Amino acid sequence: MYELGVVYRNIERTDRATTDALAALGSATVHEAMGRVGLLKPYMRPIYAGAQVSGTAVTVLLHPGDNWMMHVAAEQIQPGDIVVAAITAECTDGYFGDLLATSFKARGARALIIDAGVRDVKTLTEMQFPVWSRAISSKGTIKATLGSVNIPVVCAGAYVTPGDVIVADDDGVVCVPRAMAATTLAAAQKREANEAAKRDKLASGVLGLDMYSMREPLAAAGLRYLD
Amino acid sequence: MYELGVVYRNIERTDRATTDALAALGSATVHEAMGRVGLLKPYMRPIYAGAQVSGTAVTVLLHPGDNWMMHVAAEQIQPGDIVVAAITAECTDGYFGDLLATSFKARGARALIIDAGVRDVKTLTEMQFPVWSRAISSKGTIKATLGSVNIPVVCAGAYVTPGDVIVADDDGVVCVPRAMAATTLAAAQKREANEAAKRDKLASGVLGLDMYSMREPLAAAGLRYLD
Amino acid sequence: MYELGVVYRNIERTDRATTDALAALGSATVHEAMGRVGLLKPYMRPIYAGAQVSGTAVTVLLHPGDNWMMHVAAEQIQPGDIVVAAITAECTDGYFGDLLATSFKARGARALIIDAGVRDVKTLTEMQFPVWSRAISSKGTIKATLGSVNIPVVCAGAYVTPGDVIVADDDGVVCVPRAMAATTLAAAQKREANEAAKRDKLASGVLGLDMYSMREPLAAAGLRYLD
Amino acid sequence: MYELGVVYRNIERTDRATTDALAALGSATVHEAMGRVGLLKPYMRPIYAGAQVSGTAVTVLLHPGDNWMMHVAAEQIQPGDIVVAAITAECTDGYFGDLLATSFKARGARALIIDAGVRDVKTLTEMQFPVWSRAISSKGTIKATLGSVNIPVVCAGAYVTPGDVIVADDDGVVCVPRAMAATTLAAAQKREANEAAKRDKLASGVLGLDMYSMREPLAAAGLRYLD
Amino acid sequence: MYELGVVYRNIERTDRATTDALAALGSATVHEAMGRVGLLKPYMRPIYAGAQVSGTAVTVLLHPGDNWMMHVAAEQIQPGDIVVAAITAECTDGYFGDLLATSFKARGARALIIDAGVRDVKTLTEMQFPVWSRAISSKGTIKATLGSVNIPVVCAGAYVTPGDVIVADDDGVVCVPRAMAATTLAAAQKREANEAAKRDKLASGVLGLDMYSMREPLAAAGLRYLD
Amino acid sequence: MYELGVVYRNIERTDRATTDALAALGSATVHEAMGRVGLLKPYMRPIYAGAQVSGTAVTVLLHPGDNWMMHVAAEQIQPGDIVVAAITAECTDGYFGDLLATSFKARGARALIIDAGVRDVKTLTEMQFPVWSRAISSKGTIKATLGSVNIPVVCAGAYVTPGDVIVADDDGVVCVPRAMAATTLAAAQKREANEAAKRDKLASGVLGLDMYSMREPLAAAGLRYLD
Repeated sequence: MYELGVVYRNIERTDRATTDALAALGSATVHEAMGRVGLLKPYMRPIYAGAQVSGTAVTVLLHPGDNWMMHVAAEQIQPGDIVVAAITAECTDGYFGDLLATSFKARGARALIIDAGVRDVKTLTEMQFPVWSRAISSKGTIKATLGSVNIPVVCAGAYVTPGDVIVADDDGVVCVPRAMAATTLAAAQKREANEAAKRDKLASGVLGLDMYSMREPLAAAGLRYLD
Repeated sequence: MYELGVVYRNIERTDRATTDALAALGSATVHEAMGRVGLLKPYMRPIYAGAQVSGTAVTVLLHPGDNWMMHVAAEQIQPGDIVVAAITAECTDGYFGDLLATSFKARGARALIIDAGVRDVKTLTEMQFPVWSRAISSKGTIKATLGSVNIPVVCAGAYVTPGDVIVADDDGVVCVPRAMAATTLAAAQKREANEAAKRDKLASGVLGLDMYSMREPLAAAGLRYLD
Repeated sequence: MYELGVVYRNIERTDRATTDALAALGSATVHEAMGRVGLLKPYMRPIYAGAQVSGTAVTVLLHPGDNWMMHVAAEQIQPGDIVVAAITAECTDGYFGDLLATSFKARGARALIIDAGVRDVKTLTEMQFPVWSRAISSKGTIKATLGSVNIPVVCAGAYVTPGDVIVADDDGVVCVPRAMAATTLAAAQKREANEAAKRDKLASGVLGLDMYSMREPLAAAGLRYLD
Repeated sequence: MYELGVVYRNIERTDRATTDALAALGSATVHEAMGRVGLLKPYMRPIYAGAQVSGTAVTVLLHPGDNWMMHVAAEQIQPGDIVVAAITAECTDGYFGDLLATSFKARGARALIIDAGVRDVKTLTEMQFPVWSRAISSKGTIKATLGSVNIPVVCAGAYVTPGDVIVADDDGVVCVPRAMAATTLAAAQKREANEAAKRDKLASGVLGLDMYSMREPLAAAGLRYLD
Repeated sequence: MYELGVVYRNIERTDRATTDALAALGSATVHEAMGRVGLLKPYMRPIYAGAQVSGTAVTVLLHPGDNWMMHVAAEQIQPGDIVVAAITAECTDGYFGDLLATSFKARGARALIIDAGVRDVKTLTEMQFPVWSRAISSKGTIKATLGSVNIPVVCAGAYVTPGDVIVADDDGVVCVPRAMAATTLAAAQKREANEAAKRDKLASGVLGLDMYSMREPLAAAGLRYLD
Repeated sequence: MYELGVVYRNIERTDRATTDALAALGSATVHEAMGRVGLLKPYMRPIYAGAQVSGTAVTVLLHPGDNWMMHVAAEQIQPGDIVVAAITAECTDGYFGDLLATSFKARGARALIIDAGVRDVKTLTEMQFPVWSRAISSKGTIKATLGSVNIPVVCAGAYVTPGDVIVADDDGVVCVPRAMAATTLAAAQKREANEAAKRDKLASGVLGLDMYSMREPLAAAGLRYLD
C-alpha cells in the first residue's frame, strides 16, 4: 500500500449485482453481517442526511493540502464506483467541490468517501452527490505532489482495496472486501428478514428480555432485582 | 453509584405535572433557573433537529461495546420516562437502533439520552423517537456483561439519579434533581414570563445596555469609549 | 489587540458595495481569491444550513463564561455589520440566544461569528438569524468582566480587524481585510466567471486532466500507469 | 450536588488507616478491586511522573476561569486530605500555582486533582506537590463567583463525595466511596498478594494461557490455530 | 498578515535588556502582568521539561506539510531571537529536526515555537534547543510552496508581530507586544516582588482568605458555612 | 484483514539483520527513506522517553475493553518481535500491565505498540519495557471475546502485516513492509551518511539556503525580500 506515483487501470471490481444489493441493507446491518468489522471511524459523516448508497471502490491516496490526484482518479471511475480518498496525514482541507463533483458524476461515480474536508456542500446537496467526510472546509488545495490511484489504502481506520464494496448511509461507512461480498450479502439479507417480525413483536409490547430469552443468562450472570 | 448487576424496580419519580411542564421551557431556561448547573456536556447532540421533551429518568449503566442492559432497562420503563444511559468508559459504538427504539416506544419512553453512539438514525427520525448522543455509529455491540439499572449514574459529566427530570432540546440536555423540580419549574416560568416583554423592547431597538441598566456598572468597572 | 476595557466607536468599514458583492461568491471562492488565507478554522459551523452572508466586522473580545460585552457591542452595530466574537480562552458556553439576536437584528446585524457556544438555536433558526459557532450549549454566562469592542481580535485562528469583510456560508467563514477587499472581489468574480464554462465541460464528460492540461506535468512528475 | 455558595465544614472522612493503606496498591489494582468502576477519565495526567498517593477527598466546585473557592477550600483541608476540584464547564485555565500549593501543603494536603489546568509546574515539581490535571496553562483566573466546598461533585466523569478516598499514581486517579473503602482495600490486597507469584511464573516463561487455564475456553469460543 | 511570498529583513525588535529580563519571570507571571491576555493555546507543550526562555520573535508562515520557508527564516535570525512558526491550516507534521536546529542555533536562535510538529526530539533535548509545539511526529515535509517571513502571524491563537517578546517555560508560551514590553516587565517584577513574602506567610499556615481579606467579600456574595 | 477467531502460527518475518539495523536510523529517517509513508498517527506516544527499537511485527486484533487475545499473542512471540495491537473501535482502556509485560519480555518481545491504553507504567519504566500507546489508563479489561493473532491489521492509521518491521522512538512509530525493508534500510543509511557532513556545515553557520541551493528556486517561485 505504499507505492507512490502509480495508477492501476485494471482493478477487479466486486460483481455489480452483489454490490448494488448491499445498499438497501444499510451500513449497520452489513457491519453486523461481517462480524462487526470493516467500519470506517464514526467521525466520517454525510454532508447531508438521507443518502444511502453502495458501490465499488476506486481508491486514491493524496498528500495533505494537495488534490492533484483527484483528477487522475476521475479518469479511472466507471459507472457504479465510489471514490475512496485517503490522505497521508491528518488534514481537513476542502479537497473536493462542485466542479470535481460534476466530473465524478459525469463518469458515473455514486459518492465520495474522503478522510479530509470538502466544500461547496450547498451545491453538492442540490446536485444530490453524496459525500462522507471528516470535515467541511472552504480551504482549497494545491496540485503539486504525486499520490496514487487504485492501490490499497487506509481510510478513516479501515483498509480498502480497489474493487471492494462500500456501503454508506446516515449511520456511517462500511467496507466489504470483494472476497466477502457474496457471503456478507447473504448474511445481511438473513438478518434483515428476521427484523420485520421482531419489530412487530416489540411494537406490541413484548420485551427483548423474553423475545431473545435473556432472562436466564442474565440471572446466571448474577443479575439481581431489588425493590 | 458503583453497584453492578442490580436493577432497582421501584424508583421515586418526579411528579408527572411538574415533569411535563418543564419541556416547554427548554433546556437553556431550565439550566438558568437552576443556577446554571445540571447540564450535560455540549457534545451531546440530538440526532435530528426540533425535538423538545421532558421526562423522568430511568438510568442504565453499560460497559463499552455491550448493550445487554438496554434490554433490562426496557422492562423498567413507564410511560413518560426518558432512558439515560451511561458507559463505564468512553465509547462511540452504536448501542441502540430501530428495534430497541420500537420496544422503548411501546413501553412509553419519550427519548434516549446516551453517552455513546446510536444507529438506524434515519429510521429513528422517521419514527420521531428523539435521541441525544455523543456519536452516530453503525458499530454494533455484544451482550456479555452486567451493568445496572436505576442506580445513580454520571452521564456526559452530569450526575443523574433515577426519577430526576430530564429536559432536552436542540440546545442540549439538563438534569433537574427531583428535589429541585418544583422550585426550578417556578423559577423557569418566572424567567419565561419576563422574556416576551424584553423581546418586544429589544425588537423595537431598545438596547440591553439600557433595559438592564448596565451603563453605570460598566463605567464603574472602567469601560472607556474612544472615538 | 490586547487593550481591555475599551470600545472604539468609530471604525473604518469596508465600503458597502464591495462588502455586499462578496456574499454571492461564497467563502470557498473568496478564500481562493485571497491566495488561500484568511479562513477561520473549520470547527466553526453554521447553526442551520443554507445561510450565505457578507458584512462588515464589529469585533468583541469576551472572557470565558461572561457575555457582558455582547450588550456593549450591540450598540456599535450598524446595518450591514456582522459581529465577530473572540474569547480569551477556549469556551463552549452559550453566550448568545434569542434575546440578543432580537437586539442585534433590530440594530441591523446580519450574522454572528463566535468562537464559543450559542443557544436558543431553534428560535434563531425560525428568526433566520445566522450564526457560525464552535458549539451549541444551553449553558448560560455571567456579566462580570470587561472585554473590549472593536479592537483587532483572533477568532478561530484568524486575525480580524474591525471593518474587515466577513463572508460566511455552509463551507465556513473567511475574513477579507479591508485593504484587500476590492482586489479580492475582482479576483473572486474572475474565478467565478470561469467556473460556469468549466462546469459544462466537465458535465459533458471532459476530464480535468485534459481541461487543465495536467497530463504532461503529471508525466513529468513521474506518474506511471500500470495495467 | 447542585447547591451553590455553601461550605460544609464537617464531613465524614474515611478512616485514616484504610485510606493510607490504599496508596501502595495503586490506581489500577484498586480500580480492579472495585469491579472496574470509579475511575476518573484518562485525560487526567500527573504533572510529573512517580507520585503515588491516597487521601480523603475535600471537594470544591468552581466556575470556569474563577478560582476564588480554592482559597475557601484551603481552610477546610486537614492533614491527609486530597483536594478534588470540579468545574461547571470545560476549562483549561491555570487555577492553581505555587502560592496555593504552599498553602495547601501547609494545611496538610497531599495532592490536588483538578478537572482544569494548573501552572508553576516547575516549582510544584520541585516542591514535590503532586497534581493530576487535564491541562497545564499559564492562564490565570479571577475571583468573582461563588461555588461550593464539600458538596458531591462530578470530576472528570467520576462522582466524588467529600470524605471518599482518592488513589492516584502514574496510571490515573480512582475514587473509592467511603462505604466501599474497607472491602476495596481487602480485595485489592488479595489481588496484590497473588501477583508476585504470577510474575515469577510468567518471568520463567510460563504462558498466561496455561497459568490462567485459558486454552479450553478459547477453544470453546471457537479459536482456530492455522499454520 | 496575509502577504505571501515576502521576507521582511528589517524588523523592529524589542530592546534586548527588556526582552531578556522577562525570561526569569516566567509565562504565568508575565501573562498576569499583561492583564491575562497574550497566551498561546495550552496545547503548545515543551518537548522537554525545564527550559525557560525569552527572545524576540522572528515569524514564519508555512503551508501544511511544507517547511521550505524555515530555511528562509534561518537567515533572518539574529542572536537572541525566537522563531515563531504558524501554519495556514492545522497540521502535525514534523517541520523541524536536528539539522535545522543546528542551523538555528548557529544563527543565535534561543528556541522555536511552532503550531505543528517537530522530530528528532531526542537529539534536540541533548542539544538543549528548546521547542514548544503542538505535536511530535516523524513525518517529514516537502519544500514546494512559498510562505512569508517576518509578517504578523496567528500562532496557536495568539497574534504575533515580528520583534515582539516571546516568553516560554513549562507552563506555556506568552507573546508580549513590543509596545507593551517595558510596562509588562515593570508590572511583572512588581508581582514577583510581592510573591516571596506571600509564600512565607502561606507556608506558615496563614490562609489566603485572611491574607487577601476575602472573608468579607465572600460573605457579601452570600457564602454560607454549614456544619 | 477481517478474519476473526484465528491465530496464524507461521508468519514470514523480515530477516533479522535488516530488521535490527533499522533501529539506529530512527523513525524519522526511516519514514523519509520510505517516501514519507508508513507512519502511525502521531497520537501514539512512548510511555517513557529515550527508547529506540526495531523488531518484527506480531499482530493482534482486539475488541474494545477486552484483552483476552493478548495472552494468545504472547505464545506467538519470538525473540526480536514487537507486538502490534489494534482495536476494532476507539478505546483508551489499559489492556496491558506489568504481568503481561513480564510474559512478553520472557518470550523475547522488544516492545508493544498499542492503539489503546496501558497501565502499570511506573513498573514498565523500571523494567525498561517500552510501549507506544494512545493513552495511559488504570481501567482494566475483560476476557470474553475472540479477536485474531497475526492477521493484517490497521493500527493507528497504518496497515501492518505480520512480519513487517516496526521502528519506534521518541518521534513516533513507523511500519516498514517486509518487501521494502532491504531497500528502505539502504536508502535510510544513505540519508544518514549525508547528515553528519551537513550538520557540521550548518553548525559552522552555512545556511540551508546555500547548502541546498535553494536561493534560485525560491526566487523563481517569486520570493521577494523587502527592507
